[in-house]
Amino acid sequence: MAEKLGLVDDEYIPVGHYAGKVDAAAVLERLGPDAPQGKYVLITGINPTPLGEGKSTTAIGLSQALGAHLDRNVVCTARVPAMSTTFGIKGGAAGGGYAQIVPMDVFNLGLPDSHYASLATNLIAAQLDTRMYHESTQSDAALYRRLVPTVKGVRTFAPIMLKRLAKLGIDKTEPDELTPEEIRKFVRLDIDPHTISFMRVLDVNDRSLRKITINQSPTEKGRIREAEFAVTSASELCSAQVLCTSLGDLKEKIGNTVVAFSRSGDAVTVDDLGVTGAATLIMRDTVKPNLMQTIEGTPVLVSGSCFANISVGNSAVIADQVALKLVGNDGFVVTEAGFSEAIGAEKFFNIKCRVSGLQPSAVVLVATVRALKVHGGGPPVSPGRPLDDAYTSEALDLLEAGLTNLRDHIGNLTKYGVPVVVAINKFSTDTDAEVALVRDAAIAAGAVDAVCSEHHGKGGAGAVDLANAVIAATQEPSDFKHLYELDLPLKDKIEVIAREIYGADGVKYSTKATARLRDYERLGFGKLPVCIAKTQYAFSHRPADKGGKPSGYTFEISDVKSAIGAGFVVPIAGSVSLMPGLPTRPAIYDQDVYTGDDDTAGASNGMAIGDAIGLM
Amino acid sequence: MAEKLGLVDDEYIPVGHYAGKVDAAAVLERLGPDAPQGKYVLITGINPTPLGEGKSTTAIGLSQALGAHLDRNVVCTARVPAMSTTFGIKGGAAGGGYAQIVPMDVFNLGLPDSHYASLATNLIAAQLDTRMYHESTQSDAALYRRLVPTVKGVRTFAPIMLKRLAKLGIDKTEPDELTPEEIRKFVRLDIDPHTISFMRVLDVNDRSLRKITINQSPTEKGRIREAEFAVTSASELCSAQVLCTSLGDLKEKIGNTVVAFSRSGDAVTVDDLGVTGAATLIMRDTVKPNLMQTIEGTPVLVSGSCFANISVGNSAVIADQVALKLVGNDGFVVTEAGFSEAIGAEKFFNIKCRVSGLQPSAVVLVATVRALKVHGGGPPVSPGRPLDDAYTSEALDLLEAGLTNLRDHIGNLTKYGVPVVVAINKFSTDTDAEVALVRDAAIAAGAVDAVCSEHHGKGGAGAVDLANAVIAATQEPSDFKHLYELDLPLKDKIEVIAREIYGADGVKYSTKATARLRDYERLGFGKLPVCIAKTQYAFSHRPADKGGKPSGYTFEISDVKSAIGAGFVVPIAGSVSLMPGLPTRPAIYDQDVYTGDDDTAGASNGMAIGDAIGLM
Repeated sequence: MAEKLGLVDDEYIPVGHYAGKVDAAAVLERLGPDAPQGKYVLITGINPTPLGEGKSTTAIGLSQALGAHLDRNVVCTARVPAMSTTFGIKGGAAGGGYAQIVPMDVFNLGLPDSHYASLATNLIAAQLDTRMYHESTQSDAALYRRLVPTVKGVRTFAPIMLKRLAKLGIDKTEPDELTPEEIRKFVRLDIDPHTISFMRVLDVNDRSLRKITINQSPTEKGRIREAEFAVTSASELCSAQVLCTSLGDLKEKIGNTVVAFSRSGDAVTVDDLGVTGAATLIMRDTVKPNLMQTIEGTPVLVSGSCFANISVGNSAVIADQVALKLVGNDGFVVTEAGFSEAIGAEKFFNIKCRVSGLQPSAVVLVATVRALKVHGGGPPVSPGRPLDDAYTSEALDLLEAGLTNLRDHIGNLTKYGVPVVVAINKFSTDTDAEVALVRDAAIAAGAVDAVCSEHHGKGGAGAVDLANAVIAATQEPSDFKHLYELDLPLKDKIEVIAREIYGADGVKYSTKATARLRDYERLGFGKLPVCIAKTQYAFSHRPADKGGKPSGYTFEISDVKSAIGAGFVVPIAGSVSLMPGLPTRPAIYDQDVYTGDDDTAGASNGMAIGDAIGLM
Repeated sequence: MAEKLGLVDDEYIPVGHYAGKVDAAAVLERLGPDAPQGKYVLITGINPTPLGEGKSTTAIGLSQALGAHLDRNVVCTARVPAMSTTFGIKGGAAGGGYAQIVPMDVFNLGLPDSHYASLATNLIAAQLDTRMYHESTQSDAALYRRLVPTVKGVRTFAPIMLKRLAKLGIDKTEPDELTPEEIRKFVRLDIDPHTISFMRVLDVNDRSLRKITINQSPTEKGRIREAEFAVTSASELCSAQVLCTSLGDLKEKIGNTVVAFSRSGDAVTVDDLGVTGAATLIMRDTVKPNLMQTIEGTPVLVSGSCFANISVGNSAVIADQVALKLVGNDGFVVTEAGFSEAIGAEKFFNIKCRVSGLQPSAVVLVATVRALKVHGGGPPVSPGRPLDDAYTSEALDLLEAGLTNLRDHIGNLTKYGVPVVVAINKFSTDTDAEVALVRDAAIAAGAVDAVCSEHHGKGGAGAVDLANAVIAATQEPSDFKHLYELDLPLKDKIEVIAREIYGADGVKYSTKATARLRDYERLGFGKLPVCIAKTQYAFSHRPADKGGKPSGYTFEISDVKSAIGAGFVVPIAGSVSLMPGLPTRPAIYDQDVYTGDDDTAGASNGMAIGDAIGLM
């Protein structure tokens, strides 16, 4: 696979028999900045049902069609699945049916990236709390003596400390030259415990850790505080990794991560904690995407793991950059954005593409007849429950009523100047009349084409029509543009998205949200893009809203968080859960290994997990 | 390196350029049970100072001498270093000077085993608390309907559930045949929250998590409880991995791990939680030791990470088993036991060798003139402080006074029937007269030889004398025996160790310890070996006791924990800290990566860390 991609020498680093790391920096350096690039294709979707509508399988199936059936150079870029998901309800995210990434157990559990992000995050968090402990128990002089010790008669600042000195405006490099006041400013981060935003993480759905009290050992001298754990994909370091363009850029993003505020209102960063180098050291291999393959032997670069609510929900920039050069002039890179068009594609175009400088050539909007019927007013669907007859037999009226959802997503996508192809992810019970209805509506709404795809049941062969439509679309003129300029104040950026994409008349902010936005503007973070966290089930912030864009409503922002290091501000509509829970019967029960000496195992030295459609 | 060891085909699985996994099961199967084995050499030490006396460097240096200078087949087996240690005071544990495992950054941060143990442990802990949540909010019928759902018209127990049914004495395999009472017993683990002994873990020194309160989110409905995090090396799963002999054995050990007791006093296991398969799946690659090398190109198998207090502090059984067959008849396997002779070697002989069935051929007792002077009454030494003159100039009286420590350790070791070689880890300031004094005392006390070793400064060349002494010792008759039989009650086993090894007159138990021991006997765990947690700085439970075995004292057990799945009971003398803290200036400050676009990095794409002597 590495040879097929044209990797040479040490650009491929094997990690076990079924996956390896690609030294993206080495490849990009060898190929040079002017190397020709392939066509960049985004997969997004309409507002889904809780069953998922098949974005991941479409991305995989389309790349199988392009690579294994139409003989095109192709790379599919995918996110590293959250291991927590593998043990929860869904039981994995390797695609499904005949559109899969293999081996499934390596994809779901064997890639190391999430371990690194967890460890680095928790190291930063430990250093944060421990620094507060040491500041609370030591004098300025004692802190300084320990932070800048005399070793073999010499006293020097660690390189990372020079950054803090520069930030404080202290233009000295000799430790003995600092005045007591400068020493005080240097050694005291003076963190306000109520402002700590940096969370510990686990890649496990552990609801017990949503809200906890820490520092309760007598050794911590009563410094108790409330804290929370998130799942690893919700970590700021995962966001930084997804959006970084090099190891140096990752280090800068980690160092700039704001963990809390000081009592005087300054931002306290990972640089201030001195953990930047160590955290980057832990994370260093995450800038090397994992090379795997689909069930039909086409390459997949797996890199980046971040949620689509608190973060951008896209795979890593660096993987797309290297993939586009590896496939060359006539090739294709297929990537997916998590959540629906109004969230995933918006963040892809306005945040990810801005960071990467890459120009998408086409966007595929995945729709299912089932989801459109739900938008038309059909009965609710939920995992594990049998489907209503409306979804397994022809219901043209219901479908017609729901097409407004499809039309409004197409309308949104055309604002970016990129050709839109609608992929109808076809189920066996969908009728020809239903498919024709969707197709006509899509084209009438501005899609350049709309085709059925049956990759789940037929693999790449089932997605050849879609692939041909995508190839044709990428020959169309593309005039890619962002939706807003970064110069706008944060509130104005939010308004543009709310009006243009969500169909709102305006935006209402909670007092807290307004205060936070003011803080961010004051601290110089106002030029960052905004990454709005909201439900994926509707255009609005109300998950129950079905159909197209509602009108005459005000979009509501309840809170604002940020990932300053990664480079965005996160306005939150509603509430965002960063730590899921396990169900009564998690997928755990079906997972086992073959050990050769028992007969209870469900799979051959691998995972026994069911098919899963869609990726969070 | 893999070829040099005689590995064929897929027995070596590369993981990056500098390390790989050895499929121990495949090697053992190919070589067969009757393949000749090499000599098995244990490295242990006298009671150390807080600076460490060089057990790890001696193990590495000795293997370099045997392999690179005396042309013997040799494998050094080492523990996977705790990453937490890398970021703390010591900054790594790859040996030091010219007796090192390389590359240091891969050894300290690049081996995946600890990530797997952390994830598997935290998954079990999450399932434990979540199961309690679901039991508290659902009826028997609802729990049963969800745990054993009807899928496509069929209702079946997951294989792991059959184990619980068997444990409950319910001889049925059809879900619909259970009576309501049987259903109740099946679905209700009925965990008593006060008895939960299974801890969450991080491989980070995070003192804030020593004692916490969890379940404080309103979603958890007031089910708050106290909990604690330990470092990963203190986890029961790490102990299970160290002592397992195959993947199947690991699975059994994980399944048998007792996480809590039910309100009626029964042991609740990982099997009962249904997580055995998933946890083993996560841990599956840990039964494949990591192959690395020393600075002189001799092979090292790195596997197993467990503390020497709460666990056995040895490297993995499976690595020693495969290494002994790989080196063959004339070869050597050198391994180290953490903490001093009275702890590390005792657990090696009585727990690890019992599990593995392996027979040690010689034991090397590492001593330093410095530590013996401390035992003779010299002033205290501590990391980061300059050494007193007593340690850098000749002080024969002080040394003589401290030799009792060496004599008593030799006396203990001779009880196992294995020849003892004393290795004097020589510092440049040690005088010839001092070395001679130690040597004479060692031989008089029963060592077969006592030689200087200068591996730290000279690499394998500095350990050739030691290697020759070890080769000679392994030709001596060895009559290995355990110190106690497993049939003895737990208290009797503790007494044997306290009297024979610690020199106590007897043992006193706290009320809590007595109650716990009674519980373990009642539940059928009385035949397990005991793994006593105590200070490594003295023979007794009092760290300040210097010199040899104190007499006329009672050894005190304050508490008893266990690792039932791994297979031992842990009587605790004093208090055991399972979560260290970070110092004011952790090694973090000196760690960095080379990114090519800054000049603040301290090392070339690796770690900038100081030498570290000794391994916890």
